[in-house]
Amino acid sequence: MPSLVEIIATKRDGHEHAPAEIQRLVSALVAGELADYQMTAWLMAVFLRGMTDAETNALTDAMLRSGEVLDLSAVPGVKVDKHSTGGVGDKVSICLAPLVAACGVPVPMVSGRGLGHTGGTLDKLEAIPGFRVDLDTKTFAETVRTVGTSMIGQTAEIAPADKRIYALRDVTATVECIPLIVASILSKKLAEGIDALVLDVKVGRGAFMKDEARARALAEALVRVGNRAGKKVVALLTDMSAPLGLTIGNALETAEAFEVLHGKGPDDLVALTLALGAEMLILGKKAKNAADAEKQLRKAIESGKAADVMRRMVAAHHGDARVVDELDRLPKAPVIVDVNAERAGWVTAIDPLELGLSSIQLGAGRTRADQAVLPDVGIVLAVTRGTKVKKGVTLARVHARTRQAAKAIEGRVRGAFTIADATFPPPPLVLARVDA
Amino acid sequence: MPSLVEIIATKRDGHEHAPAEIQRLVSALVAGELADYQMTAWLMAVFLRGMTDAETNALTDAMLRSGEVLDLSAVPGVKVDKHSTGGVGDKVSICLAPLVAACGVPVPMVSGRGLGHTGGTLDKLEAIPGFRVDLDTKTFAETVRTVGTSMIGQTAEIAPADKRIYALRDVTATVECIPLIVASILSKKLAEGIDALVLDVKVGRGAFMKDEARARALAEALVRVGNRAGKKVVALLTDMSAPLGLTIGNALETAEAFEVLHGKGPDDLVALTLALGAEMLILGKKAKNAADAEKQLRKAIESGKAADVMRRMVAAHHGDARVVDELDRLPKAPVIVDVNAERAGWVTAIDPLELGLSSIQLGAGRTRADQAVLPDVGIVLAVTRGTKVKKGVTLARVHARTRQAAKAIEGRVRGAFTIADATFPPPPLVLARVDA
Repeated sequence: MPSLVEIIATKRDGHEHAPAEIQRLVSALVAGELADYQMTAWLMAVFLRGMTDAETNALTDAMLRSGEVLDLSAVPGVKVDKHSTGGVGDKVSICLAPLVAACGVPVPMVSGRGLGHTGGTLDKLEAIPGFRVDLDTKTFAETVRTVGTSMIGQTAEIAPADKRIYALRDVTATVECIPLIVASILSKKLAEGIDALVLDVKVGRGAFMKDEARARALAEALVRVGNRAGKKVVALLTDMSAPLGLTIGNALETAEAFEVLHGKGPDDLVALTLALGAEMLILGKKAKNAADAEKQLRKAIESGKAADVMRRMVAAHHGDARVVDELDRLPKAPVIVDVNAERAGWVTAIDPLELGLSSIQLGAGRTRADQAVLPDVGIVLAVTRGTKVKKGVTLARVHARTRQAAKAIEGRVRGAFTIADATFPPPPLVLARVDA
Repeated sequence: MPSLVEIIATKRDGHEHAPAEIQRLVSALVAGELADYQMTAWLMAVFLRGMTDAETNALTDAMLRSGEVLDLSAVPGVKVDKHSTGGVGDKVSICLAPLVAACGVPVPMVSGRGLGHTGGTLDKLEAIPGFRVDLDTKTFAETVRTVGTSMIGQTAEIAPADKRIYALRDVTATVECIPLIVASILSKKLAEGIDALVLDVKVGRGAFMKDEARARALAEALVRVGNRAGKKVVALLTDMSAPLGLTIGNALETAEAFEVLHGKGPDDLVALTLALGAEMLILGKKAKNAADAEKQLRKAIESGKAADVMRRMVAAHHGDARVVDELDRLPKAPVIVDVNAERAGWVTAIDPLELGLSSIQLGAGRTRADQAVLPDVGIVLAVTRGTKVKKGVTLARVHARTRQAAKAIEGRVRGAFTIADATFPPPPLVLARVDA
């Protein structure tokens, strides 16, 4: 085995690592033999030299094995999770997990918090009074078995090497590197004890990947490396050139997800939930094809079964299950300020990045990992792309703690809407499907 | 000014830094705002993306200004130093500095210790009983003024950022990077308060640069960046395909350097000392051309003036000045073991790397920065390239603490000599001269 410095030099010189070399680096990092300043030199070499699938697979495996791999063998059936690379207004997990579980596919889900311009599922769930995301892994497994789904945060036991490496990447300009993103996502997801995974790789101004070619490369790498690790993986490339649904902000988004379970909710959110759910049902061997899956999913909504799983999941997480039906029980911001159109025309674009950043400015998200978020504030769209508006019509409503806070972002929110003299159809929601 | 992470990303993406960005990185490192793990990510990006001369100049300047810049304005004349990139048997500094000083050019010299397979001037000087290399900078300047030369180690005040960055490079596979080497060498040398610099860039198996094209690239970069910093710089590319002179080991090399000052010493060592000395005299405005310079240098040896400067320098450093004339006063190893030829023929190659490593195995050098070295042990060559030998003739003598220690390297030392049926001339000592 070469020395740790020789291993760094191997990647520096553009050579492929043997799997044992990558395993050695990660275990040396965790054991304190490899210093952070050595790891970051290697990370930068990986950023600039790349990694093969075999190397990415080895890194995923090493990070996964740095901690606990949950044992869900007591849960019968094919366990399937969904992961999104993050966008603005993306509350899909909250309605998708109970919906899929209601169709008989167990969904163990370890979620993240918001960072950058995007929200996080954990922050949205915590808008539910009493809801706790810190169940221990035993209770998590038990909840998946009895309720069908459970949603927790990454514990200290799950892939600790990923946590450490991600923190280093964040401050060394090595975040946007496909093999490192793949290993980070998959190591956490495989540690959940899943059998199959559906990925929602977002592309557009509201996503981390702005460029379709790069998003597709990420989706393909995720599928290939996931398959190498013995898991069934399907990825959908989906549009993030506008916010998903009509709400941005924690309680606002949670309420909108509940609407979907009640057979309501905006078209794009319902469509994406059904598309991802269909993939999960097929991977979970509960549906033969997409049409069959969609039928089952719609039935689970209509029958009230999906909402029932949601109620039981909220209760298992110590939350107030009444919020699922009584949306007024969610936290509400004291001030609502309308943002109106300054001209007439067609709404042709709604910038998700600007709205995501505006929402963070209100306090719905964080700019540093240790910040608290406000559950009640956010933005609700009153129009979508393709809507014809008159001057003075309301484009969006800002939910804020104070009038001053709302006014501070009013211009930015208004500027996020492009109003033109002609309209054109928005891009399709699902841009591509990637599987093995 | 971009953030520190944005500065790292700039180099990661192959862009050129503004000088202020590099200044910011180095001052943030010294102030503790930039973590080591961020610096090493940047160092790896520099290794793989390179730096322009303007960037290297900015880095040199930032590292230089991280500490004290010695003020030698009280010393009249053009102050000239010499720096070697390191080789085996390279004791040139010890005879060169007093020789050049004897011709009227002040030589302030901050030297290093041995690391890797090469020896260090400080270790060799410390073989002189009582000699101290840790004079404070005030005494150093005063010694240069009164004696003409002084040789000390890098103090905590001289280019501390270089010390810190070098330690990080050493463990992150970022040592062999021309812009970083240039900045490291020049920042230390410019901190001495010199006006001009002669560089001995070694190439061959005993050097850090094995390849002539890369050594030439380093020499050219050193001259260009040195000129940008307002200093006159000349570099000689010199052969290190065999040891320089006949001795390897601290006291053995010091004695050989003294021999040169007495008009003796092996031809190659004398020739290189004169070649480098001539450049220094010309830069120091004491000679019109190489022929004039060589004449003055030879005269300083013959007149005894050079040896006299040596004696006074040793005394100023608290050493026993009698050793300059009475070489027996230097430490002597108790055991000498002959290494003999196993066949007859011509000595066509003497591997400096193997002999350097053998000498370290005896204890003359170190494998870790914190190790002590033995002053007395080493290897003395009994033949040079081109010598015709009979079987059983002595090739080298190993000076060791114990017979066992000598025997342990006997085979390795013998293996360093190639004996063939035909001979060919060795390469020239000076391969090229690089100036502005």
